[in-house]
This record gives sequence, C-alpha cells and structure tokens, in this order.
Amino acid sequence: MAEENGTGQRKTAEDLAKKQRDISIAEFFEKNRHLLGFDNPRKALLTAVKEAVDNSLDACEEAGILPEINIELIQLSETRFRVIIEDNGPGIVKEQLPKIFAKLLYGSKFFKLAQSRGQQGIGISATVLYGQLTTGKPAIISSKTGPTKIANRIKLKINTQKNAPDVEEEEQFNWEGKDHGTRIEVDLDGSYMKGHQSVDEYLKETAIINPHATFIYTNPEAQQVIYSRAANKLPPEPKEIQPHPYGVELGRLIKMLENTECRTLQQFLTTEFCRVGPGTAKEICENSSLLPNTKPKDFTREMAEQLYNGIQKSKIMSPPTDCLSPIGAELLEKSLKKEINAEFYTAVSRPVFVYRGNPFLVEVGIAYGGAQPKDEPVTLLRFANRVPLLYQQGSCAFTKSVIATAWKSYGLQQSNGAIPVGPVTILLHIASVWVPFTSESKEALAHYPEIIKEIKLGLQEAGRKLQSYVNKKVRVQNQLERANMFDSYIPEVADALSRLTGDNKEQLIKKLKEMIKKEEIQNVIHNLESLKGNVEEDTKLAERSEEED
Amino acid sequence: MAEENGTGQRKTAEDLAKKQRDISIAEFFEKNRHLLGFDNPRKALLTAVKEAVDNSLDACEEAGILPEINIELIQLSETRFRVIIEDNGPGIVKEQLPKIFAKLLYGSKFFKLAQSRGQQGIGISATVLYGQLTTGKPAIISSKTGPTKIANRIKLKINTQKNAPDVEEEEQFNWEGKDHGTRIEVDLDGSYMKGHQSVDEYLKETAIINPHATFIYTNPEAQQVIYSRAANKLPPEPKEIQPHPYGVELGRLIKMLENTECRTLQQFLTTEFCRVGPGTAKEICENSSLLPNTKPKDFTREMAEQLYNGIQKSKIMSPPTDCLSPIGAELLEKSLKKEINAEFYTAVSRPVFVYRGNPFLVEVGIAYGGAQPKDEPVTLLRFANRVPLLYQQGSCAFTKSVIATAWKSYGLQQSNGAIPVGPVTILLHIASVWVPFTSESKEALAHYPEIIKEIKLGLQEAGRKLQSYVNKKVRVQNQLERANMFDSYIPEVADALSRLTGDNKEQLIKKLKEMIKKEEIQNVIHNLESLKGNVEEDTKLAERSEEED
Repeated sequence: MAEENGTGQRKTAEDLAKKQRDISIAEFFEKNRHLLGFDNPRKALLTAVKEAVDNSLDACEEAGILPEINIELIQLSETRFRVIIEDNGPGIVKEQLPKIFAKLLYGSKFFKLAQSRGQQGIGISATVLYGQLTTGKPAIISSKTGPTKIANRIKLKINTQKNAPDVEEEEQFNWEGKDHGTRIEVDLDGSYMKGHQSVDEYLKETAIINPHATFIYTNPEAQQVIYSRAANKLPPEPKEIQPHPYGVELGRLIKMLENTECRTLQQFLTTEFCRVGPGTAKEICENSSLLPNTKPKDFTREMAEQLYNGIQKSKIMSPPTDCLSPIGAELLEKSLKKEINAEFYTAVSRPVFVYRGNPFLVEVGIAYGGAQPKDEPVTLLRFANRVPLLYQQGSCAFTKSVIATAWKSYGLQQSNGAIPVGPVTILLHIASVWVPFTSESKEALAHYPEIIKEIKLGLQEAGRKLQSYVNKKVRVQNQLERANMFDSYIPEVADALSRLTGDNKEQLIKKLKEMIKKEEIQNVIHNLESLKGNVEEDTKLAERSEEED
Repeated sequence: MAEENGTGQRKTAEDLAKKQRDISIAEFFEKNRHLLGFDNPRKALLTAVKEAVDNSLDACEEAGILPEINIELIQLSETRFRVIIEDNGPGIVKEQLPKIFAKLLYGSKFFKLAQSRGQQGIGISATVLYGQLTTGKPAIISSKTGPTKIANRIKLKINTQKNAPDVEEEEQFNWEGKDHGTRIEVDLDGSYMKGHQSVDEYLKETAIINPHATFIYTNPEAQQVIYSRAANKLPPEPKEIQPHPYGVELGRLIKMLENTECRTLQQFLTTEFCRVGPGTAKEICENSSLLPNTKPKDFTREMAEQLYNGIQKSKIMSPPTDCLSPIGAELLEKSLKKEINAEFYTAVSRPVFVYRGNPFLVEVGIAYGGAQPKDEPVTLLRFANRVPLLYQQGSCAFTKSVIATAWKSYGLQQSNGAIPVGPVTILLHIASVWVPFTSESKEALAHYPEIIKEIKLGLQEAGRKLQSYVNKKVRVQNQLERANMFDSYIPEVADALSRLTGDNKEQLIKKLKEMIKKEEIQNVIHNLESLKGNVEEDTKLAERSEEED
C-alpha cells in the first residue's frame, strides 16, 4: 500500500472506480463561481444586477415593449445587500418560473440563431445560486403576464446536487397597478463602491447603448438616478435564422441528418439551412457526388463527410442580416455626444460578416478632445449585443484589435504593443447571433481571427475620420499661432512703416489689424467651421487606398 | 404582431414559454468549444494531447506507478490527425470506461480535496467530443487492469443531447506484452506546428516539471523524442483532507448540516472538518451561542448563520499540508539546469497558505544569463499542479504578479506595467487542492488576492538571490575591466619607470604583469568562485527587512 518506489500499487483500478461519480453543473459552478462573474463581493453585486437587467431587456424587446426597468439596492448589513430588479416585460408563465430562475443551462436563447443578450441559460440562475450560497436565503420571484391575469409569487432555491429548482413557497396575489412584468429579489453578500466597474457604471453604459430603455436606479445610499429613454422606438426585432451550411461542422451535420424528417437530401438542404434554394442544393449535391434523392436515413459517416466537403466547395450566399439589430452610426454618435464631453465625434457601422457560420457585425464610435485627459491611454467602452463589458479588458479581442491598429497615423501617440494615448474614448460594439466569450461570465470576446479583422477595419474607418479632424486642428492651430505672432509685432512694424512713409502710426496699426482679421482670422474661422463637415469627404480617398489591407 | 412602437406585443409570455428547454452540458460546450481549449486546429491538437497525458499521469501516481507514457501523432490528411496516448497506469474497469471518456462532468477528482492535475471531469470527454464533432468518428479506448486480466476495447461517441456515452462496439482481447494501462485513439481536425505553444513545447515542459515520468513522443513527421525520467522515486502521495471550517460558505454549511449523519453539533464539527478537535469545537459553539448537543437536523437558517459567524470568530489551525505535493526547491533548480543553458540558477518553495479554505503553495525558479537574450522580456514558464500553462499568459495571475514585482531592484530592466527585460527565465508553479482557473480549458490562474500575494513573496525571495548574483557579477566585471585597462598601460608605465630608475624595461614589464596577476586577477578569480556560494547567505539579511511587506 505505502510502497512508493514504482513497483507497488497505492490504489487499484477497482479502488479508483469506486470514487467516480456525476458532477452536477450547479455543483461545478458553485465551486467555480469566478467563471460566472462572482469572483469577489464587489463584482458579485454587479453581476447579479447585470444578469437580471439583461434578461429584462431581452424579454421586453421580444414582446415589443419599450423597457422600463427599476433597479434597487438595499444594504442589509456591512456585507449583505438585497438586489431588486423589476421590469415591465411580458411576464413569465407560472410553470416556467422555477426552471428559469433555479436551473442552470435552461432557456430559450441557446438554440435560437438571433441576437440576444442572454445566450446560455445560466446567468439569472447563477445569481440565485450565489445568493443562497452566501446567505442561505431563497430568491423571491413575482410575475404577471397581463392586466387581467393574477400574479404569481414564488420563493425558491436551487438543489445543487440535482441542478433542479426547489420551490419553498408559492402564492397568487393581486399585483396592484401593474399590467405585466417580472420582479426578482435576491439577498447576497456583496460590496458597493462607485466608480470604475461599478453597478453605477454598468447602468450608465447600458443606458448609452440602449437609448430606447428607461432605467430607474436607487443605490444603497437611497439616491435615485433616472436614465430616461432617448428614443421612443424599439430597435427592429432580430429575426431568427436557420444555420448556414458553411457554419455546420461534420459532427453536427451527421446529427442533423439523423434527426431530420426530410425524405431526400435535396429537401434536407433546402429546408434545414438558410441560403440554400433548389439551385444551390443541386450544386452541393454535384460537388458531393451524391444524388439529390438520397435518403438522409441512409447516410453513412463517409457520405456525410462527402456532403461536408461538397458544401465547402459550393458557392453559397452569406447569411441574411436581419438576425442582427445593430445600433447604427447615427444613434451611436448621438449617444456618445450625450454622455461624453468632447469636441469631435464620429461613428461607423460595418457590414455583416460571418465566423463559424454565425453572422456578426462591428460598430465603432470615437469621441475626441474636450475634457478628456491628453496623456493617458484612451478609454475603451466595450459592448456585446448591447451589454457593456466591464471586466477582463486585457484578454478581450476588442483590446487586442485596438493595440494592433496603427494609431500614430491617425494622430495619436502609441508605443509598441500598447493602447494608444490621447484625449479619446473609443466605443466598440459587436452584434452577433452567438458572441464567443472567453468565459461564462461574458466579460471578454474570444480571439476569433474573423472577428478581430472586422474590428480592425472598423477602427481604421473611424480612425481615418479622426485623422482628418486632428490634422485640420493642427493646421488651424498653426494659423492661429501665426496670426497671434503677427499681432504682437504690429506696433513695431507700424513704427517702421510710419518712419518710411510718414503715415500716421495709429492708423497703420488699425489697418494692419484689419488685414489680419480679413485674411488670417477669417481663414481660421472658415477652417474651424468646415472642419467637421469635410471629414466625411476627405476620408473617402484614403479609404480606397487602405481597403486592400 | 408587427407593431414596433412600444404599445403592441411581438410575443406573449405564453409564446416565450414554448421555446424554453434544457440545454445539455455537452451541447453547451460543443457550441463553446473555445472554453475547453479547442479554439482552433493547432490549439485543439495540443489540448487533446494535454488532457490525455494529464489523466495518465494522475492515474499512474494514484496507483503508485512510475509513469511511462507514449504519445503518437499520425497525420491522416492535410487537416486531420490521429492522436494516440498509451500509459502504464492501473487501467480502468470496464463499467467505468464509457462514462469517463464520454460524459462531461464525471469523475473522481472534483469532490476530493487533494492535489491532482484533473479536477473537473471534463477534459478527456471534451477531446472525444471535439473528435466526433470534426470527424464524425468514435474514439477507441483500450484498457487492462492487471497482468492476469483480459483487456477491454470500446468504440464510443457522446450523445450530446443527453450528455451520455454511446458505445458503438465493445470487445475483449488479449493485450500481448502489456501488464496494465490505458490507451486512447482519437481522430480529429488539427494542425501541427513546432515551437511556441506546440505539443512539443508542452511535452518538454511537462518533462521538466515531472522528473519522475518518462515520455516517448512520436511526432507527425515520425521523429521520436524520448524524455527519460530524472528521478526514480514518485513524489509523495497527496493525502485527501476534509474541508477547513474557514473555507465553507454559509450555503454549503447549511447543506452539510442537512446531509450529515452526526447526532450533535459537537460531533458534526469534529467529524466533518479538518483541524477541529474537541477544544476547537467547544470554542466554535461558544462563539456561536449554540449548545454542543444541538441536533444538526434542528438547525434553522438563522442558527446556521450563527454557527457560520462563530466559526469566523474562532481561532482554527491552518489545514494540513500533506494534501499537496510540491516539487521542492532542489528538484526545481535541478530541472532548470537540465533544460536551460544559463549561468545562475535559484529556486524557492514557499510555505502552505489558504484561499477560500483551499490549501496551496507557490514555487519559483529563476535561471539567469547564459545564452538567453538580454534585450527581450523574460521568459515565463507557468505551471499548475505540475501541468504547463501555454496559453492566455496575459490574463494569468502569475503574469500579473510578475508585472507587479519591482525587478529594477533585482538588477533587471522594467517599464511601468510591463514584464521585466533581461536574460532570464522565471518558472512559476502553484500546487493546490483546487486551482482556480479563468476557464474550463485551464490555461490561466484567476486573480485571487491571497494567491497573488504569495506569488509575489516567492518572486521577491528568488529575486533577492538573483540581485545578489547580478550585483557581484557587475563588481567582478568592473575588476576585470580595471585589470585589463592597467594591462594595456604596462608598456608605457614600464617605459617611464625605466627612465626614472634605470632598471631594465623588459624586467619591469614582467614584474608589473605579475603584480596584476597577484592582486587584481586573483581577486577576480576568487570572486567568481565564491559568487554562487555567497548568494544564499547574503540574502538572509535582506529577507528579514523585506518580510514585513
């Protein structure tokens, strides 16, 4: 037993077998709660708010309701808080309440190819799990699905060994003054601080990127902040799409062939994928050396691989773009203007591209100058599907792309491998049917090359507009300086002239000053005025040359 | 339906309910395979090898067998490889084979508080999942549990919707020449390249940190590399411990109280925790204002919270340290010498500390000078429970700690917020019963403050030894330079002396050269020899003053 020289056995295969067992996903995340964003008390408070608000926004938009969300934090003791989020969404039917709030990996968005904030079916249950882990208390959920409906209230916990809801109490009640909506109350250990990476910052940035939503926020000091909506129209509803053939891996293709109800390969291709009409289906069949009337049930692994290779060889149109709901350059610029005190603003919204079959698009906004510090790294505001990303900036593909862009040519300082320095805020947004995050806590984008390339193109496009402004600003400043300098020499020049010509010195000074006004100053004024307008046109030429990068 | 002005509803609560469903953990990771280290073909090949080798090493050590592991990569097509790992471990009993290799979140290490490489019960099943996703093929597992036993071979896949094994074939066979062990064969899409972050680098680093194991590696070019073991003794077996009271959160304490078979609180405390004897149990009861004979079944949430607070107020000894198996400073320095061509080596192994109730310790090795480049950032070799971490250096707590250490005082260059520059390799190792990683792919350490503090103390301790060497080296170099300079002036000095004294110039030159030899050169030689030996003593004084940091 205790022999340790390599010949004896400490444990046998049979000993080891006895200890093997199932690990529930709830137990896994309870132990690994930093993967879900519950690393420490401060971040835990933020994550709890974030998961609830994200769900509320998704639900309102799915139901076509302009969101109005109440967020309230109540301090119960030095380390304990009550988090309350209440929305005006469509509500949740009684039967679904337990699983949605107390079962990890349960939801509607995982299988749906359309842009949404939630995508994993983990977040809100993780909040309930963290609350019960740190306080032992159940979460309280109330929901009402319509003005004439009775409301439901349940108190629940998660049975972590089973990853299943454990309802402690349930009751029906008359929710006065509420037409429809959902409210969650969770007690948890947390820590409240303002500033960087706080609940306050999260809500401020969420308001920037969701101008159609109103947020009423009461912080633990009982101060209330209201972010009123800036737009009275919901963004267009992202449409659900079917998988694109290019994005389906061989193993998944085999599973689709096994599960389909289609009778022929032709029908399978045109029914279960997007962008495959009869012509494309025919091309795929030819490229796969398979007959269009082959039955999906008869496929062997080798035939499926033929089909997979045939798909890669066929020319298939990119997926439709209405599965995404971008913010748009105009609204993005408007939001930046509202929140950041700067002198120049620009924004771009890139076309849709695809990574692993998932459509996505990138948006970039830049705010330059004003009150922003000149000698510090630029501020990055990162967003994914309209959700601010406040942690793990260093490991995010957004940050990598900013570092990999040559900012010196756009008028900012930058040392090798570093974020540029200057009075600038850069806002970055990715909209996708599936955002690849580096962990379940959804704090940073994974480094997919297709995504990094698009972010860089967006940064370059916005960067060129910035460059045009910065260059002109430098020119205007030079002119102003020249004018000022000439101005200070006027008395001496006038003195010399008056001696040469015999003219009156005072009159000469007056004339000279008028000259400057006419030429230099007017030039300067003209330049300042046209500065912003010209930027658009100026960048067009530059774009043509850079686009081949 | 299509009203989008905020008054009409796109979808009702009932519509939304219809789409809610369970998400299997296998489906989740199939879609999020970058979380498991299968981001791209090159990394996928590495991860597949890593998960299998880690399991083999764990199994051998648990069984008290000196590991001998065969790794073979066969290229099947441009993008496809067969990965074969065969060990001499204890083997796996037939009934356990399917679940161990084809069910995510299944294993023996998750619930065990003892150091091991695997901890999640995910890795090897993830490899099988990735293989089937990219090739549609099953994995083939062979295993034999003893010389007189018949071997088993199974072909299996994962049913992703159920997260359950799907055995396609199974057979018994006579495994000639094999006493015991396990072999896995998986076909997968991958890409093979040497160098940084390659399978080759992983195996080389694994051999450094596991000197008791032999690796026989055949790469896709059919070249064989053998890393023979440097130590013929297994590391001491890490002992399993019970949870420490300080590390148990309120929610878990409640669950333990519900599930215990103990009849009294006193018995519960002394039986289910480590470091709680009758005296400590009494202290906890007093601090909790609870009677020692209270029945665990009678506990309310409020009583559990009293107990939780009482535990925090009580003085409880740190957990035992034999649950960990550190490498040790001596072996660490030896391993560095074997693999890195440098002129100075040092290593430290820190005492055991605790984060969230989990014992851990940090080890640091430094190799300085030699053939290492002078003007580049130092090389970091990161390890967790004897496993090399090759990816995500930027987001790792090891890297953060290196950056946060003031290397200028130890003789290296360093700019603000950057990795130091110099001819140095820094090896970092954490051993813990539960290593907190930033994702399931186990590539970077999460930023727990207790862990970062310990890493920094280890770096400082090793840094002081480095400083002592670097300072002496500079002194010796100055002496050598002075001696050389004097040497070049000898003819002129001799010339002047001979004119003054009338002595023979050639003899004067000879005498002067002897003088240098005697004084300067001997000094230099003496210093060079004593350089290494003194370092140990010199740092002791420095330590005393820094330890209060």
